[in-house]
Amino acid sequence: MLPADLIEYENTPPEVRSVFDDIMATRKVDKVNNFWKALANHPATLRRTWESVKQVMAPGELDPLTKELIYIAVSVTNNCGYCIHSHTQAAQKAGMTDEAFGELLAVIGMANETNRLANGYQIPLD
Amino acid sequence: MLPADLIEYENTPPEVRSVFDDIMATRKVDKVNNFWKALANHPATLRRTWESVKQVMAPGELDPLTKELIYIAVSVTNNCGYCIHSHTQAAQKAGMTDEAFGELLAVIGMANETNRLANGYQIPLD
Amino acid sequence: MLPADLIEYENTPPEVRSVFDDIMATRKVDKVNNFWKALANHPATLRRTWESVKQVMAPGELDPLTKELIYIAVSVTNNCGYCIHSHTQAAQKAGMTDEAFGELLAVIGMANETNRLANGYQIPLD
Amino acid sequence: MLPADLIEYENTPPEVRSVFDDIMATRKVDKVNNFWKALANHPATLRRTWESVKQVMAPGELDPLTKELIYIAVSVTNNCGYCIHSHTQAAQKAGMTDEAFGELLAVIGMANETNRLANGYQIPLD
Amino acid sequence: MLPADLIEYENTPPEVRSVFDDIMATRKVDKVNNFWKALANHPATLRRTWESVKQVMAPGELDPLTKELIYIAVSVTNNCGYCIHSHTQAAQKAGMTDEAFGELLAVIGMANETNRLANGYQIPLD
Amino acid sequence: MLPADLIEYENTPPEVRSVFDDIMATRKVDKVNNFWKALANHPATLRRTWESVKQVMAPGELDPLTKELIYIAVSVTNNCGYCIHSHTQAAQKAGMTDEAFGELLAVIGMANETNRLANGYQIPLD
Repeated sequence: MLPADLIEYENTPPEVRSVFDDIMATRKVDKVNNFWKALANHPATLRRTWESVKQVMAPGELDPLTKELIYIAVSVTNNCGYCIHSHTQAAQKAGMTDEAFGELLAVIGMANETNRLANGYQIPLD
Repeated sequence: MLPADLIEYENTPPEVRSVFDDIMATRKVDKVNNFWKALANHPATLRRTWESVKQVMAPGELDPLTKELIYIAVSVTNNCGYCIHSHTQAAQKAGMTDEAFGELLAVIGMANETNRLANGYQIPLD
Repeated sequence: MLPADLIEYENTPPEVRSVFDDIMATRKVDKVNNFWKALANHPATLRRTWESVKQVMAPGELDPLTKELIYIAVSVTNNCGYCIHSHTQAAQKAGMTDEAFGELLAVIGMANETNRLANGYQIPLD
Repeated sequence: MLPADLIEYENTPPEVRSVFDDIMATRKVDKVNNFWKALANHPATLRRTWESVKQVMAPGELDPLTKELIYIAVSVTNNCGYCIHSHTQAAQKAGMTDEAFGELLAVIGMANETNRLANGYQIPLD
Repeated sequence: MLPADLIEYENTPPEVRSVFDDIMATRKVDKVNNFWKALANHPATLRRTWESVKQVMAPGELDPLTKELIYIAVSVTNNCGYCIHSHTQAAQKAGMTDEAFGELLAVIGMANETNRLANGYQIPLD
Repeated sequence: MLPADLIEYENTPPEVRSVFDDIMATRKVDKVNNFWKALANHPATLRRTWESVKQVMAPGELDPLTKELIYIAVSVTNNCGYCIHSHTQAAQKAGMTDEAFGELLAVIGMANETNRLANGYQIPLD
């Protein structure tokens, strides 16, 4: 059962294929990555997750690069290796430079430190 | 010992006072918040943390608002109540609108979800 | 020192062997897995952990499969790769289907998301 | 901005009201709880989260009580106070007894312990 | 169901009372704290947890103060408010000074920061 | 971009080289490990992190071995594989025996368990 089977496009039932098609069309790529191939094991999760990600990551007041930086901040804090890799690649595609990546990790590290100082001293709200 | 004593400006020894003065001058405010008053219980931690935060949060390739959003992403993921409050206030000061805050939390939530889907399916790197 | 030596049955001192024997007898298997072989480096931890796991995972009001699903929920949230693998196998043995596994991960993902929405909005108790 | 305003039914715009109506109809209750009132600050998040929760928590191979137990396991591991309260209430409504709650917490505690033993000994997969 | 009822000594059934008696005798105190009163809702958890804590926290190669510092490091990292309070008190009783507490939090903060730098850069083992 | 390039001594610009020199001199070793080579991608982070680690890990009221044990406790709780390895090696160098390591992991495991029992029962402060 683990690691999950990666469902390839040519083997997908219609309800999976239509999601894969939408991912590729939306992102202008010609293949989906392993995350979606794994989620295809449970088509309802695949569709719901894709619809949610598509909505949440669309440009809004926050631009796509900023949203990717936030995604990395969460993934690094949770130590999700797959997610760190895939969203760092996405952020690079969206224009993140080496310097920006260095600054991002510096902020993530500092926030994780000061979160614990605030916990440890049990600091009351201002 | 807990919650930590909050060291007020008028009671600070010189090595604390000079840090408080620098915080107020750098941020153009006339008082420091509870985080710094608590850290003042251990002056070496106060000075090191302030010098680090000042460096890390200074404008760089990432602007101050983006850095605050990243700080919130970490703090929400770790559930640090004090940090969520203080950095949400800082982000508002730096220009975060209600809509941006809503989008920020949506991305944070989604990232925390997909991190666990990636863990649960043990998805290999692309 | 890391990764821990895996202590094999034939090399175990008596206080370890008796625990290994009890694990195999209780679970009706003819070998213990790596978790127990690693814990055997500290026999007091081995014995205490086994006695606790045996008590906690025994059938009660919650049946063994439900307990394994809960174990997976914790392990996925914490991203413990070894634990995700071993408890997914145990859950399969206890009857978890592919569909149930998909539903389980969907709930785990959703809970991790809504936990952060609750944190982020600092929602007061009802 | 925090804690979030709780949007009351009588003050909701139509796109929020229709979600509130669906929550009350689906759950056969006559008011929504604070979680939804807070999410109503960002209607897109409210709708997406409700549609997802409704789908994920519906009876499937896993029954509603089992899904609530999994939700609690995640929420306790992440220490989300609001979520622990609300899902413990939901689980009670779905039939969780005091004994089942005690067993649930025992499994959650044990899993959090053995996750760290596996991390600490860096145990290889079987 | 929450917060848990705190079971007072005079209301305890015999299997709880004997554990409370052992806690008080072992720790040379004349009352147990809320943690044990809450666990008394599930006597099997109370007994198992106490027996485990008694064994694990007993003086060994690591002295009791060092063990309390480790307990605080975990509790601060996980942001368990109750645990931070109770183990900080226990550490003070065992001799932790204000300076030692300041150093402890400094190390905890730094470790939480560098953990994320290591995650973020995906650094391979040396 | 990931895993990060490991910057070797002979390829370092002066502002990196001076930090590498200080690490080697302070620790009396003739090479720096991968953590510092990765941080060298962002020289400001390298310098700040090293200056902070040097200050925080210096002998104080807490001796260097105790500080390493605390570092391990955080790293195991967060499941940072690289950090668990490197700080376990550092602790061994500082005198940690196999028995002490076993006791350390036992305390870490127990604290992670009781943190969740305290969360799950929502125990009020004493």
